[in-house]
Amino acid sequence: MTDTTEINRLHAEKMARVKAAKDRLIAGKTIEKGLLMVHTGPGKGKSTAGFGLMLRHLGYGRPVGLVRFIKATDETGEIMALKRFGDLFTYHTAGEGFTWETQDRERDIACARRGWELGQTLMADPDFGLVVLDELNIALRYDYLPVDEIVAGLTARRPDLHVLVTGRNAKPELIEAADLVTEMTNIKHHFRAGVRAQAGIEF
Amino acid sequence: MTDTTEINRLHAEKMARVKAAKDRLIAGKTIEKGLLMVHTGPGKGKSTAGFGLMLRHLGYGRPVGLVRFIKATDETGEIMALKRFGDLFTYHTAGEGFTWETQDRERDIACARRGWELGQTLMADPDFGLVVLDELNIALRYDYLPVDEIVAGLTARRPDLHVLVTGRNAKPELIEAADLVTEMTNIKHHFRAGVRAQAGIEF
Repeated sequence: MTDTTEINRLHAEKMARVKAAKDRLIAGKTIEKGLLMVHTGPGKGKSTAGFGLMLRHLGYGRPVGLVRFIKATDETGEIMALKRFGDLFTYHTAGEGFTWETQDRERDIACARRGWELGQTLMADPDFGLVVLDELNIALRYDYLPVDEIVAGLTARRPDLHVLVTGRNAKPELIEAADLVTEMTNIKHHFRAGVRAQAGIEF
Repeated sequence: MTDTTEINRLHAEKMARVKAAKDRLIAGKTIEKGLLMVHTGPGKGKSTAGFGLMLRHLGYGRPVGLVRFIKATDETGEIMALKRFGDLFTYHTAGEGFTWETQDRERDIACARRGWELGQTLMADPDFGLVVLDELNIALRYDYLPVDEIVAGLTARRPDLHVLVTGRNAKPELIEAADLVTEMTNIKHHFRAGVRAQAGIEF
């Protein structure tokens, strides 16, 4: 028996055990429900993964809704691409730029309130399978919206609706209420090496 | 002067300082280049953020290419959605399932080799702005492909091509060569609460 044959035999045995363990795990997972998801942390990928989730929904012909709480421009690649899905994609922008762009706390608060109202309208519409509240965490972090009210509203959504909240510094109350929380961590970022934001990557 | 007025004034001053600092930072970032990006870690969002990046590229009408090294099915929401972009989206699947599904090391190695050849073909085609090598890290982790050869091939790509490699357990050699590395960390995962994989979320 060659070494390779032996390696392959041990591999097949090990993988059969791994598969049996995975199958047992999967068999134990039977619940279907609309998830409250949070993408947080300082790393790149929070909103980007949100657009991937929207794409996944759109592939099944399920309508998705998006409220952007902070960024204002409509000319980003992801929005232009999502517009190709026509009526399946509903989009509102509630922000007028990052809070250090506006420098106007009262206006930021009014924008955040408007964003939450738009988000609630989307969440109340039974057509939508997924509602993404992009950068809502920023509005919560600056206390532009009271976290208790928002968490209560998110928790009271209909049972089959998926909602994703993105943005750094997710509040503990939101993490507590969520089904899924992924933290995007920077191991390495090209901005640190002097690379600028580029179309197709950052916007 | 009311408390609110004072809070708003201090906020505006602070945000003006933040904006000045951000503007200085952005002014220092002038490099444009094709990035080598890695999404790794145990958390959800690695491939999902890859689909978001593809969407972002597609919005500008830039062709994107995808090689899936592990998953075999074409019936996922993201693939069905991306097919709507017609010729702008090129897709190859090289894997026959996770390595614990096939239980056949020789076949997994042959699949990984085929995936890398397909990836190299996409990378050599000047039409593509972004090539995603989904789950390549799994093939590297199991030494189905030699990391030195792969890193050399990725590093030798043309200067304006963006490449994304996804999958857990990214090899240190790949992290070293990359421009961006995001680690997706699980703070909380619904699988642990007995929720099953659902269409539009996991596939």
